[in-house]
Amino acid sequence: MPAKGAQVDVIVGGGVVGLSVAWRTARAGRAVTVVDPAPGRGASYAAAGMLAPVSEVTYTEAPLLRLGVASLRRWPAFAAELAADAGLPAGTGPAAGKGPASSVESGAGPGFAEVRGLDLRADGTLDVAFGADDLAALDELAAYMEKLGLPVERLTGRECRRLEPMLAPSVRGGLLAPGDAWVDPRRVTAALLAALERLDVPVVRARATGLLYEGGRVAGVRLAPPASEDGPDLRRATGPDTTGPDAAGPDAAAREVLPHEVRGERVVLAAGAWSSELAEVPVRPVKGQIMRLRSPQPLLSRCVRGSVHGSSVYLVPRGDGELVVGATQEEMGFDTRVTAGGLYELLRDARELVPGVTELEVADVVAGLRPGTPDNLPLIGPGRTPGLAYATGHHRGGVLLAPLTTAILLGEESELAALCAPGRFREIS
Amino acid sequence: MPAKGAQVDVIVGGGVVGLSVAWRTARAGRAVTVVDPAPGRGASYAAAGMLAPVSEVTYTEAPLLRLGVASLRRWPAFAAELAADAGLPAGTGPAAGKGPASSVESGAGPGFAEVRGLDLRADGTLDVAFGADDLAALDELAAYMEKLGLPVERLTGRECRRLEPMLAPSVRGGLLAPGDAWVDPRRVTAALLAALERLDVPVVRARATGLLYEGGRVAGVRLAPPASEDGPDLRRATGPDTTGPDAAGPDAAAREVLPHEVRGERVVLAAGAWSSELAEVPVRPVKGQIMRLRSPQPLLSRCVRGSVHGSSVYLVPRGDGELVVGATQEEMGFDTRVTAGGLYELLRDARELVPGVTELEVADVVAGLRPGTPDNLPLIGPGRTPGLAYATGHHRGGVLLAPLTTAILLGEESELAALCAPGRFREIS
Repeated sequence: MPAKGAQVDVIVGGGVVGLSVAWRTARAGRAVTVVDPAPGRGASYAAAGMLAPVSEVTYTEAPLLRLGVASLRRWPAFAAELAADAGLPAGTGPAAGKGPASSVESGAGPGFAEVRGLDLRADGTLDVAFGADDLAALDELAAYMEKLGLPVERLTGRECRRLEPMLAPSVRGGLLAPGDAWVDPRRVTAALLAALERLDVPVVRARATGLLYEGGRVAGVRLAPPASEDGPDLRRATGPDTTGPDAAGPDAAAREVLPHEVRGERVVLAAGAWSSELAEVPVRPVKGQIMRLRSPQPLLSRCVRGSVHGSSVYLVPRGDGELVVGATQEEMGFDTRVTAGGLYELLRDARELVPGVTELEVADVVAGLRPGTPDNLPLIGPGRTPGLAYATGHHRGGVLLAPLTTAILLGEESELAALCAPGRFREIS
Repeated sequence: MPAKGAQVDVIVGGGVVGLSVAWRTARAGRAVTVVDPAPGRGASYAAAGMLAPVSEVTYTEAPLLRLGVASLRRWPAFAAELAADAGLPAGTGPAAGKGPASSVESGAGPGFAEVRGLDLRADGTLDVAFGADDLAALDELAAYMEKLGLPVERLTGRECRRLEPMLAPSVRGGLLAPGDAWVDPRRVTAALLAALERLDVPVVRARATGLLYEGGRVAGVRLAPPASEDGPDLRRATGPDTTGPDAAGPDAAAREVLPHEVRGERVVLAAGAWSSELAEVPVRPVKGQIMRLRSPQPLLSRCVRGSVHGSSVYLVPRGDGELVVGATQEEMGFDTRVTAGGLYELLRDARELVPGVTELEVADVVAGLRPGTPDNLPLIGPGRTPGLAYATGHHRGGVLLAPLTTAILLGEESELAALCAPGRFREIS
C-alpha cells in the first residue's frame, strides 16, 4: 500500500465500475487503493451484463442512448486489454458454447471483437412481442428507433422463430438490434480483480463508513472496525448463492488486521446504491431479482427481450450454457430478499416467451440493488468538495457504461462528460 | 457397535421411516445399526409433514386411508416419547408461533396432544377450491367423504376466509378436516438422531451398495468404499440448501475410517426410492419439488390445500414462521434438480390461493424422491429372503405412516399388517 500522503486515489466500491476505474487509473500510472467489503458481490454480481444501448432505448432517454452507444464502442478494446492484463487466454472470436443457430451477421459495428474469457458476445438483441398490445408497443418503438436512425430490423413472428427456434409459437413479432452485445459481469469483476493483483493494487476488504476531511478537502475514508465484519453485512448480501468467484474472500480478509482508515489525494465514490451513505448524492437503491438457469445445451443464440402483456423480461445466454433471466425493478429500499413474487414474475414471463425454460434447472437466484438517479444518468466526475469524485448512479447500465466511465474520469472523453457531471444536482457534496 | 454375529438389526436408510424403526427397535431392547450416507437428507428433508389422512383421501385409496387414520392416532404418543428420548423440552400444547386466528376447535380426535419441539400441530386441514371446476370436484369429494363417515365440514368461501383471512377473495368454498395434523419432518429426523445417540445406536454414514448373503439368508450389507464419499452423492442431493440440522455430518463422517460391511441377523430395507438398488422391490422414485418461504408473521393458522383449475398445491405453516409450499409430483427417475417449471407451478398456485405469499422471502427450495409403489401402499414386513425385511414404498406418506410402520415391524399391529405385506408383489426378494 502506498505511504500515507502519497498521490493515491481511493476507490470506494469494488463492482464493475469501481474496479474498472481502479484498473484504468493504475494502468495510467497512478497509485490506487480499492475499498470494498466483498468486491464483485454487489449489483455486479446480480447483473445480466447486457450491452444493449439500442434495444434498451426508451422515449425519454436519448442522452442515455448516446452514452451507451459510445461506451459499447469502447468495449472490445477494453475487454481485450482486460483479458490480457488478467492473464486470460487471448482468444477472441466466437465465444465458447455459442449456439449453431447464430447465422445472422453479428453486429456491434465492424471490428467488434468478441472476447471468450469474459463471455463477451455480439450477436445482437432480439426484442419480441407476445400479445397484440405488446406488438402495438413494439411497432411504436420501432418507428421511434428508425426516427433516431438506429440500426434495427423489424421481424415477423416467423422470422423471430427462424432466428431463435425455441421462441413460443405465440410470439407475434420482433425487433432485431444486431449491434447489441453482452458480457458476463461475474467474469468481468473476476478479471478486474486478477488484473489489479497483477498491478499490485491493494484491495482492502472492509466497509467504508465515512469520508475523512482535512483542511476543507476529502482526504480518505474511515473503515468499519473489523468486529463488524464478523457477521455478514446483510444489506450487501445477494441471495442464497455463496459460490461466486470471491466467496471465500471477505471472511478470509476479515481475519486479517484491517486499517482504521485509508488516506489518499482523491476519493472516488463508486459504491453504487450505497453511495448515499458516504456523501450527499441523489442515488437510491432499485432492487432487481435475477435467476440463472442451467441448460445442457444453449436454448438461445442471442439475447432475447420480451414484453408479455406489458411485463418485461430478458433472457441472456452464457457461454457455459447458463441462461440468465431478469429482472424485476422494485423500489424497496435496501432490501435484497429473493421473494416468491419476484421469482413468479420472472418465471411466468420467461416461459411464455421460451416454453423450454421450464425443463431447466434453477442454478442460482439473487437480488441486487441498482444505483438509480433522478434522471437515470450516472454521476461521473468531481463533486463540489475538493478531493471527492463520483463514479456512481449507473442504475441498469453499470456494466455497459464502465469503459466510458473510466474514460470520463481519466479525462479521455470530454464531449459526453457534461451529461454525467455530478454538479447538475444541487444537493451534491 | 455390537460384535459380529450378535442379534442386531441393520436398518438401511436414515429417513423418518428408517430412523423411527431404529429408534423403536432399540427401545424394545434389540441392537440396531443404521446405515445412511446422509441421514435425514433424503425425501424426509423435502417432505412437508402433513399428517392428513382425511384431506388426502382419494377415490381409489380406502386402504391407505385406514393406514393413515391408524397411524395418525399413534402420532401424539409417538411424538411425546420421541421428544422425551431426544431430550427436547417436554412442552405439549399449542405449538410456538401459532397464529391468533386459530379459534376453531382443534381436532385429530380427543386427547391429541401437540408437541412443540417437533412442531406437531393439530389444527386441521382446510381444502379450498378456486375455480368453478375446482368447486364441483370438491363437492363430489365431500359427498364421497361423508359416505365414508369421515369427519369433514363443508364451508362457503366466506367461511373459509373467516378461518383463514389471507385466502384470496376468489376462493369459492372449502372442506375442513378438523382432525388432520402436521409436523416438521426436519425436526423429527433431528430428534430421532438425537434419541439414537442417547441410546448408543451406531449410525454409519456410508452408502449401502449391496446385501450380504450367507447360507441362503441375508447377513448384512456391503458399504461403498470411503473414496466414493469424497464427493457428494448427487442422486441423494436435495437442492441448493445445505444448512439443515445434519449438514456437517456426512463430510465429517467421511473422514473417519468406515467399515466395508455391516453384519446383522436382519436387514430392514428403509432406503425409500433407493430401495430397488439393493433388492427386487417395485419401488420407483416420484420427484417432488417443495419451497420454504420465510414469513415475519404467520399467514395461515392451519394447513391449506387447494385446487387451482385442477392443479393441486398445499401450504403448511411452521412454528418458526416458515410457510412450506408443495409439491410437484413428477415421474422423472432419479432426478433431484430444482427446475424453473416446478417452481413456477408452485408459485402460480400458491399465489392464487394466498396472494400475500408474493411478499415472502424464498428461504429454501429442494427436490426429493418419494418411494412410489404400484398400489400406493407401503411395503412393511419380511420379504421372501430370510433375514430381509422392508419398511419402504411409503410414497407421499412416510412421515404420517412412520408410527404405524414401526408398530407393524415390531409385531404390535397385526390387523393392518396384511395390507402392507411385501409378499403381495410376486417379484419381491
